[in-house]
Amino acid sequence: MISIGVIGATGYAGYETVRLLLGHSEFTITTLISKSFVGKKMSTIYPNLAGICDLELEELNYDIILKKASCFIVALPHGTSQDVIATLFKAGKKIIDLSADYRYDNQSIYESTYDVPHKHESILKKAIYGLPELFKEDLSDCQLVSNPGCYPTCSLLGLAPLIENNLIDLTSIIIDAASGVTGAGRKQDLMYQFNECTENFLAYKVATHRHTTEIEEKTSLLAGKDIKVTFTPHLVPMKRGMMATIYSSLLKPITAEALYKVYNNYYKNEYFVRVKELGQMVNTKQVVGSNFTDISVHVDKRTNRVIIVSAIDNIGKGASSQAIQNLNLLYGFDEKTGISHAGSYL
Amino acid sequence: MISIGVIGATGYAGYETVRLLLGHSEFTITTLISKSFVGKKMSTIYPNLAGICDLELEELNYDIILKKASCFIVALPHGTSQDVIATLFKAGKKIIDLSADYRYDNQSIYESTYDVPHKHESILKKAIYGLPELFKEDLSDCQLVSNPGCYPTCSLLGLAPLIENNLIDLTSIIIDAASGVTGAGRKQDLMYQFNECTENFLAYKVATHRHTTEIEEKTSLLAGKDIKVTFTPHLVPMKRGMMATIYSSLLKPITAEALYKVYNNYYKNEYFVRVKELGQMVNTKQVVGSNFTDISVHVDKRTNRVIIVSAIDNIGKGASSQAIQNLNLLYGFDEKTGISHAGSYL
Amino acid sequence: MISIGVIGATGYAGYETVRLLLGHSEFTITTLISKSFVGKKMSTIYPNLAGICDLELEELNYDIILKKASCFIVALPHGTSQDVIATLFKAGKKIIDLSADYRYDNQSIYESTYDVPHKHESILKKAIYGLPELFKEDLSDCQLVSNPGCYPTCSLLGLAPLIENNLIDLTSIIIDAASGVTGAGRKQDLMYQFNECTENFLAYKVATHRHTTEIEEKTSLLAGKDIKVTFTPHLVPMKRGMMATIYSSLLKPITAEALYKVYNNYYKNEYFVRVKELGQMVNTKQVVGSNFTDISVHVDKRTNRVIIVSAIDNIGKGASSQAIQNLNLLYGFDEKTGISHAGSYL
Amino acid sequence: MISIGVIGATGYAGYETVRLLLGHSEFTITTLISKSFVGKKMSTIYPNLAGICDLELEELNYDIILKKASCFIVALPHGTSQDVIATLFKAGKKIIDLSADYRYDNQSIYESTYDVPHKHESILKKAIYGLPELFKEDLSDCQLVSNPGCYPTCSLLGLAPLIENNLIDLTSIIIDAASGVTGAGRKQDLMYQFNECTENFLAYKVATHRHTTEIEEKTSLLAGKDIKVTFTPHLVPMKRGMMATIYSSLLKPITAEALYKVYNNYYKNEYFVRVKELGQMVNTKQVVGSNFTDISVHVDKRTNRVIIVSAIDNIGKGASSQAIQNLNLLYGFDEKTGISHAGSYL
Repeated sequence: MISIGVIGATGYAGYETVRLLLGHSEFTITTLISKSFVGKKMSTIYPNLAGICDLELEELNYDIILKKASCFIVALPHGTSQDVIATLFKAGKKIIDLSADYRYDNQSIYESTYDVPHKHESILKKAIYGLPELFKEDLSDCQLVSNPGCYPTCSLLGLAPLIENNLIDLTSIIIDAASGVTGAGRKQDLMYQFNECTENFLAYKVATHRHTTEIEEKTSLLAGKDIKVTFTPHLVPMKRGMMATIYSSLLKPITAEALYKVYNNYYKNEYFVRVKELGQMVNTKQVVGSNFTDISVHVDKRTNRVIIVSAIDNIGKGASSQAIQNLNLLYGFDEKTGISHAGSYL
Repeated sequence: MISIGVIGATGYAGYETVRLLLGHSEFTITTLISKSFVGKKMSTIYPNLAGICDLELEELNYDIILKKASCFIVALPHGTSQDVIATLFKAGKKIIDLSADYRYDNQSIYESTYDVPHKHESILKKAIYGLPELFKEDLSDCQLVSNPGCYPTCSLLGLAPLIENNLIDLTSIIIDAASGVTGAGRKQDLMYQFNECTENFLAYKVATHRHTTEIEEKTSLLAGKDIKVTFTPHLVPMKRGMMATIYSSLLKPITAEALYKVYNNYYKNEYFVRVKELGQMVNTKQVVGSNFTDISVHVDKRTNRVIIVSAIDNIGKGASSQAIQNLNLLYGFDEKTGISHAGSYL
Repeated sequence: MISIGVIGATGYAGYETVRLLLGHSEFTITTLISKSFVGKKMSTIYPNLAGICDLELEELNYDIILKKASCFIVALPHGTSQDVIATLFKAGKKIIDLSADYRYDNQSIYESTYDVPHKHESILKKAIYGLPELFKEDLSDCQLVSNPGCYPTCSLLGLAPLIENNLIDLTSIIIDAASGVTGAGRKQDLMYQFNECTENFLAYKVATHRHTTEIEEKTSLLAGKDIKVTFTPHLVPMKRGMMATIYSSLLKPITAEALYKVYNNYYKNEYFVRVKELGQMVNTKQVVGSNFTDISVHVDKRTNRVIIVSAIDNIGKGASSQAIQNLNLLYGFDEKTGISHAGSYL
Repeated sequence: MISIGVIGATGYAGYETVRLLLGHSEFTITTLISKSFVGKKMSTIYPNLAGICDLELEELNYDIILKKASCFIVALPHGTSQDVIATLFKAGKKIIDLSADYRYDNQSIYESTYDVPHKHESILKKAIYGLPELFKEDLSDCQLVSNPGCYPTCSLLGLAPLIENNLIDLTSIIIDAASGVTGAGRKQDLMYQFNECTENFLAYKVATHRHTTEIEEKTSLLAGKDIKVTFTPHLVPMKRGMMATIYSSLLKPITAEALYKVYNNYYKNEYFVRVKELGQMVNTKQVVGSNFTDISVHVDKRTNRVIIVSAIDNIGKGASSQAIQNLNLLYGFDEKTGISHAGSYL
């Protein structure tokens, strides 16, 4: 068993990572680090873990934790994550970072998007963007994996076959997305109170969400040219689940059947991407609790547009289970280890 | 008090119409017609009405009901509604029809969209499309008002200022919409069971929803040219509420401030449309339970697109309260009578 | 129109009171007082009110507000309310207090329950407990009405016919209750975040909830002897609605039919209490949004117990609409004025 | 790997059993039987299983299925289950039955409760009631296990320590329970439609629920005398989760601390029962998705009553995961195999 630590263990992404690691056959959690709950048991904060994970939460003391684990999953806010990652990296640890700090190739786009300077350019250059279905080969021999954002994961897996097969007008991409409330994290904010969220649907950060530039950088990489997208997220009154409905103009007409084949072929070796048969609907509940991405493809002949619907679990494939998938690849295990299960549906 | 009957009183739209009429100062319900529940009290089907509306549900017997009421609101399924409306029309009754049967100017588009022949062409020609904010003058002197669909109401109120001010490329309209579950009506369908709907989000009828042609016919009318739109509806785990997120390419750049002025000016005399100040988000819960439409306007400078977010209550402004608004106009009352209130928010 | 002010207008109970007053034919809101949002519009805090109530929120400056309104509804936290009420009372204003501060006849029980001294004993003695179905005659000629707690309202209306008809062993009363999340108020608390509340059910303050002593004092008053009850509240993942399931041992056997008659007779003149026919279930959604209390009665012959199920809207009959009912009685209006409507059901 | 079949695989309990078996190290599913969906893939009915369980659903043809599996989990409606179990039993198969058909020792109570004759008395006598925490020794050497009802599981685990330690007046037991909507199964019933269930709480089958006699028979067995209980179930707007709030009069006073010790001691060897430290609340979401039972204990000194709050996942410990636990015991495996995990919390 490989010793692993989780830094930022009590936020939702950190917690979910812990929960998944508890069922993993190759890793054993040896340290859990939290800023707010030092000295408390993990199972005090998440009582569903009582009897299963009663580890005490520790402070971020490198002298201690570096000895305790050979790899770390870091679930800290962007900005905060940077220095922690740098310290772990220099100590030779293998790392999965769930923040945005090491996601961008282009440092200046990171800095303008997140409004923070990046202090570790050389490490940034060594970080691999951990979206295995698109960049798997890069992940086998690296030290630091930057786990993608949830919206970028969902959008990029929907867009990649269109772009790589040169099917669409690259200036025409519109992504209309929706997320469950866990996307906002574990925080005390009036907007996310039950009474305010339930029975409500809203658009937010219209055309200004930070994940836009992450989507643009990675699609541009796939296309070999600069892409700009219009991106609008919405908030759905449910805990988990995310959907991207992607619109683009076709360069030339294609039938739905042919489009289905393109997608099916593109993902034929990917366990975690399921392309729906024509006529089947993508539902977030069919992926929630799992690491799967479900995709359906549609052609709007009347307007010569393609519509791709892509769904993930925002804290699964959009965060924690994708972190485990990356961890598996980093260590040369089968990528499915510990995360091959279906979601709970009910 | 004017005597009014509701036909199809126990479906959700019929029920909601009844509930609103109970608080209306000018109308008194004299007959409620139901196919499935003849002889039962309205308050047996909807026990929240006990002590308030204990009328017995009647069968559709014209000999009786034509004597009972001088106007009718008809909330029957499309296809079924046609003949009922025709009979009422010939009897000289004033009518609001909530079905799709009398919404289209172009009979053949109705027939191909709904896959039913239209048997009453001459009456169809006399029906007025009851979206008061766009076509108010037509409503003051007519006998039959066809109440718009919910998605068309939400989409058209969002699109009209763009089209009438010639701001957008008319070939670029994409409408990404979402509805609460009452949109599916009061039916026993596994898909709409609590366990299946809750904690789930899905796209459905992608590029094939019937409301697409209704939106197209009315936008074309506003534009004076033929418009095709891409339309995708989604299902949200909430009872009521509807949102349309509308994307279009700008003919020339405009600032968000200027766009806000365009909308504010367009709707300056409309009590039931509220244009949000820049930076304020549209939330479905701010309109649910009311007849209001809330709209926010956004410019995505980077892609030269406009994004309009429009929200209504799908069974309020999208059905029953708009029916009352039309009824008020038909009779020359203040359009706000009985429906001027705010939604409940909580 | 009588001028009225609402103090504590932006909490949920204050807001709901404002919303109801906006539709009341006899009162006009002339001042809204808030501690946290002075200078903002009411419709900025509750945007559903935009165009309907755009009054600016004022600070609690008696020099100004005493001139503005002849009566006040006060929706402040217990402890805080005491002095405000005293000042308004001395100024001769008519008052409805939604806090617990003036609910108890026995000052020392108030003080030990709420752990605050009561500083206005003489005013406390003049306050009338505003549960109109039980104490209507007291309400016609008073200056200060203390609005009951939500759990006490729901429980007392369920218990009164049993007690007043001497049907039960008074030592055997157990009240198992459940409330929607608005009962917790408008606050930023992790426990009430959407992700924490949704899909969850819990018991809280088991045998220690403050409303227990309020229920005991009022039942004791009805019985003419000292009553102790066991009371357990639960939290339900819904916004509004409250249910009390009440258990008690029968002094002698009674049939369900006879029990139904007892209740039906007891409440025969009460518009706002609806006793369900035998076999009909009480649902919170049948009362939510209204001032109604629905009650069903059951006999468990095998154990010789009676089971009474009573449901209200916790912020309707449990707070704001009952405040309006009390206000109506205070001024001699029909108690139904402005609150006679059914709940929305959907 | 032991071959196993699931009969009634597409109902919620059947489905959940399948999902759990897919992650079990000792069993491999070799046949799935369904009445309604013969010939379809399991993953067509539950698309979350696509790529994980694409087995085709078979009809109940004993010639075929008896050869395919050496044990069966049967998730059929009561009445229907009887004969199927008998056939499997005579063929020497090991069986877990999720229906009520083999739960009762007293055949006539079964027959009067479920209003069906029992046709297999000799097999009924051999069935073991599979509540492992109370009757574990009986489970190691049997052929047929009858899986308890959800409410009985939740109630009996809460009551057993009180009864076995002779702490309570056995005539004073009242169980007030609440369940998520999956308890109603996968059916198309208006009452369980999303729009009807969400934002609603109700009591149902007050003092008449069938699980009452099951609770009574098993508590009587524990007590060695005849016990009658008052039992009221409620429906909560959530998918999964169940709570029993149990009231009883103490024979003599006990402190909460002492009561906590009684429970802690009683369950000290039971992995799947967690007694909450005093002051900690039981939440259904802390057990949902798991096989755990969480229990909190409370003393209402003022009324000399004990209050026990017990929570399970109604389709986990209340059905499917308890079936796996019984299966493990039947085969001599560690009872935790395949079901030791925590619930998902989020």
